[in-house]
Amino acid sequence: MKLDIIRHSLAHILAAAVKELYPRVKFGIGPAIENGFYYDFDKLKISDTDLPKIEKKMKEIIRKDIKFKKKKISKKEAKKIFKTQPYKLELSETKSLSIYQTGDFIDLCKGPHVKSSKEINPNAFKLTKLAGAYWKGDEKNKMLTRIYGVAFETKKELDKYLKIQQEAEKRDHRKLGQKLELFSINEEVGAGLPLWHGKGTILRHIIENYLYEELTSQGYEWLTTPHIGKLSLWKTSGHWDFYRENIYAPIKIDKEEYLLKPMNCPFHIKVYQSKIRSYKDLPIKFAELGTVYRYEKSGVLHGLTRVRGFTQDDAHIFCAPDQLSNELTSMLKYGLKILKTFGFKDYEIYLSTRPKKFMGTLKMWQKATNSLKYACDKLKLKYQTDPEGGIFYGPKIDIKIKDSIGRPWQCSTFQIDFNLPKAFNISYIDKKGKKKEPILIHRALLGSLERFIGVLLEHYEGALPLWLSPVQIWIIPVGARHKKYAKEVEKELNLFRIEVKDENETVSKKIRQGEIQKIPYILVVGDKEMENKSVRIRQRGKGDIGEMKIDKFIDKI
Amino acid sequence: MKLDIIRHSLAHILAAAVKELYPRVKFGIGPAIENGFYYDFDKLKISDTDLPKIEKKMKEIIRKDIKFKKKKISKKEAKKIFKTQPYKLELSETKSLSIYQTGDFIDLCKGPHVKSSKEINPNAFKLTKLAGAYWKGDEKNKMLTRIYGVAFETKKELDKYLKIQQEAEKRDHRKLGQKLELFSINEEVGAGLPLWHGKGTILRHIIENYLYEELTSQGYEWLTTPHIGKLSLWKTSGHWDFYRENIYAPIKIDKEEYLLKPMNCPFHIKVYQSKIRSYKDLPIKFAELGTVYRYEKSGVLHGLTRVRGFTQDDAHIFCAPDQLSNELTSMLKYGLKILKTFGFKDYEIYLSTRPKKFMGTLKMWQKATNSLKYACDKLKLKYQTDPEGGIFYGPKIDIKIKDSIGRPWQCSTFQIDFNLPKAFNISYIDKKGKKKEPILIHRALLGSLERFIGVLLEHYEGALPLWLSPVQIWIIPVGARHKKYAKEVEKELNLFRIEVKDENETVSKKIRQGEIQKIPYILVVGDKEMENKSVRIRQRGKGDIGEMKIDKFIDKI
Repeated sequence: MKLDIIRHSLAHILAAAVKELYPRVKFGIGPAIENGFYYDFDKLKISDTDLPKIEKKMKEIIRKDIKFKKKKISKKEAKKIFKTQPYKLELSETKSLSIYQTGDFIDLCKGPHVKSSKEINPNAFKLTKLAGAYWKGDEKNKMLTRIYGVAFETKKELDKYLKIQQEAEKRDHRKLGQKLELFSINEEVGAGLPLWHGKGTILRHIIENYLYEELTSQGYEWLTTPHIGKLSLWKTSGHWDFYRENIYAPIKIDKEEYLLKPMNCPFHIKVYQSKIRSYKDLPIKFAELGTVYRYEKSGVLHGLTRVRGFTQDDAHIFCAPDQLSNELTSMLKYGLKILKTFGFKDYEIYLSTRPKKFMGTLKMWQKATNSLKYACDKLKLKYQTDPEGGIFYGPKIDIKIKDSIGRPWQCSTFQIDFNLPKAFNISYIDKKGKKKEPILIHRALLGSLERFIGVLLEHYEGALPLWLSPVQIWIIPVGARHKKYAKEVEKELNLFRIEVKDENETVSKKIRQGEIQKIPYILVVGDKEMENKSVRIRQRGKGDIGEMKIDKFIDKI
Repeated sequence: MKLDIIRHSLAHILAAAVKELYPRVKFGIGPAIENGFYYDFDKLKISDTDLPKIEKKMKEIIRKDIKFKKKKISKKEAKKIFKTQPYKLELSETKSLSIYQTGDFIDLCKGPHVKSSKEINPNAFKLTKLAGAYWKGDEKNKMLTRIYGVAFETKKELDKYLKIQQEAEKRDHRKLGQKLELFSINEEVGAGLPLWHGKGTILRHIIENYLYEELTSQGYEWLTTPHIGKLSLWKTSGHWDFYRENIYAPIKIDKEEYLLKPMNCPFHIKVYQSKIRSYKDLPIKFAELGTVYRYEKSGVLHGLTRVRGFTQDDAHIFCAPDQLSNELTSMLKYGLKILKTFGFKDYEIYLSTRPKKFMGTLKMWQKATNSLKYACDKLKLKYQTDPEGGIFYGPKIDIKIKDSIGRPWQCSTFQIDFNLPKAFNISYIDKKGKKKEPILIHRALLGSLERFIGVLLEHYEGALPLWLSPVQIWIIPVGARHKKYAKEVEKELNLFRIEVKDENETVSKKIRQGEIQKIPYILVVGDKEMENKSVRIRQRGKGDIGEMKIDKFIDKI
């Protein structure tokens, strides 16, 4: 809270500094945001190289111990004060009005702010970047110049943040994805719609097949459902009413409206309903790698982690009430095992309980929430409660996985749903021959393949573990006369994903390329290796680790 | 041609017979169709059981040696002749008019017809079914009653046809799909949009993985592309202009129009264009199991073989002109090998040449057509030429596979495309460092997974070969005390897809169910088997083949 106030006040100080340096500037707005603040300006023509100058001016202002003075004003006064500031005038029409004066700079603002600039540590903030931003976020309006800054209470915190940022930048999956030739995003195809190239598809295939084998052995049945379906399904499910802003406009086919599917649930329910289900069949567990399409504003799209089309590792579990606790426990246990296989061992687990508006009875919520708690306790998992954070249709557990630099990423979710079984009137026949309503659990482990691969890339800085590497081994023949032997080595290693790099280029250039592409093992073969039936090995991250017989190398990996 | 005339004349005789039996009937139209004919009637309330009576009346008419008399008439005369026949009156407005008289029945018709009914073999036709059909095929019009018939020159041909029909009915993949629990089609989801259940998804997975491994070893790179993309891509490709009636209406996203993808080509081209390609990289072969959506009229939808969404085993090969012949030869050779693996050994191969309207130069067509011929000749494949049957953008080879009862099914296609490389301006750098245009080949082997699985089911009458069977083995314990042993056997056979059927039901009932589901091996285990570490085997199609040690059974299969 205190930090928010500091950040907000820094936005004003930024505006004050810009006003001193560029007096003809027009002011937009300047709020506190996560980790910092920004201010939008019109008639400001600057570049990144001007930021240090502005930062310096801000520090001067801070050191002057300038007061933040609040005053209530009338609309009429506002019109006078801001007569040369069109954006402020526009805001004067709609807001209950107060102003803050900071030195020469007056802003229309509700506050709160620090009392004096001396409360701000001049060494604990930094202007980070310039960006274009439409006035009021509407692309019909003028594009303003936005200056971003980050701010903390201490210099130490700032330095730590900047270091993590630097780390994060090295790990940016968008850049890594390009370097490793995994995917591309092409404006001609559409924003938020990645094209997966050959190596990216291999990576997807490895993950997909791993999930397929694992979940099959856990009794899941895999389904394949279409990407469109009648709108009425999502009206019945309630999604049309609750999530319409994320659903694309319907397509008319033969006078009926169809949706590009935003979620798979109705299809899985229709498969459940395709025959009569008995208590003996429960739990029924349906899984699908279902590609769904949801609208996101273009401004929030980000590489693979925020897209418009993504492949959920979706599952729906239909069980009897007395199976709920055990099902959740086994799902959670198994889910964590799978996350661990991918290299994620630290999590934040959140249990979200009944919100103010909810469906079903208090008793149902109590029982379901207890089942979730039971599962966590049984597995000795620490969790935080998110009170009233459940969705209207049931309580849930969310897992955020922590990557190698400690950033949390929302991935897994286990949601109990009291709504859909009612809405679709689904049932099973119990021991006594009576119709009963099953409990439905939605669960995703990785969340989506796209997002998860994005997280994997950032977690490993692109150096994926051997089993996930699209290309595991490069074989580089030193000269033309070693090509045949290179092919022989390839054959012997045929259990692995290999490329023989026999283009006419220098060995050192090929090694450099292999390192850029983060190939786990680069094998160089020349006269000596040919003679010894061996390979010279460069291991990723370790460099040259010497010569080794082929058999021994296979054993090693 | 002669048969068409007989069939058309039979339609008139059908109308004449119906007129005699139901004088108040109103006549629609009655053309010859594949294998037979139909006639549409209004104000005809009959059921299937009335067909023999009508058939009998038709035979009477045929035997009367009735003449088909043609006469040109004016519009005015037509109005008089058909004054009680509203549908004929409607047609009188638009057609150049002639009538045919057959006994008492007069039809507005251009002909041609037989001269006399004695030219028709009264024992070589059969009325087959009733159906509803909208007047002029438009659902806004009234639904008429359509009577279908089949007709040939000889009774022998008719009998052969009816027998194949009967065979085909047993093999109907829609019924088999339900019995084998592979898929369902649900009106609430949408016509032509199959939902693949657990076992169906296993079957898809087997086929997908087989293709994945095979094509990867052949140097294909697999891509994964979205199901929507900007409309402008298909405007550039020309699909929007040429195939619009099969493309669903665009979806608006952020003021831009997107299509549910009707074909994958533009995406593959965008991946090709994502970096500079050298002659050294060619041929570049991209494959994708891409699910596309195309509009088909609801009336023509049929199970899996005619759907609105299907997964093409699509590929695009970019090669240099001098690589074309070899590429085509290897694709064709390899394609036939894959079809053979699925059990298809007989084909009809069609080579389609330059149509009247075409793109590119005569020389290009010549060269490409010669390459296709070269490939066929090299592989000693017999093919038929379909003169001028090529698509405007290039010549092609189509393969129809023949199923076990001799029916041909269009599956594979190899199409050379001169259009897209130009439209998208794609290039590679040749030896001299100059930009060159590659040749593009579209190819699908199975056509689509949906259609191919439909054909597989009909070909094998549901009894899929072991490697394709979603469930390969059932283990049935005789009594409760054999359940543990059944589980042990399951473990020993863990390389196979197995279900242990230990529900409380009689062994004979379970065996019957297993036979309905066409399980390749049903293993029954009781006291004797438990003692001998053996299983009692029922092999599909053979019944009980005796007891066998587990090891020996594994060797056997």
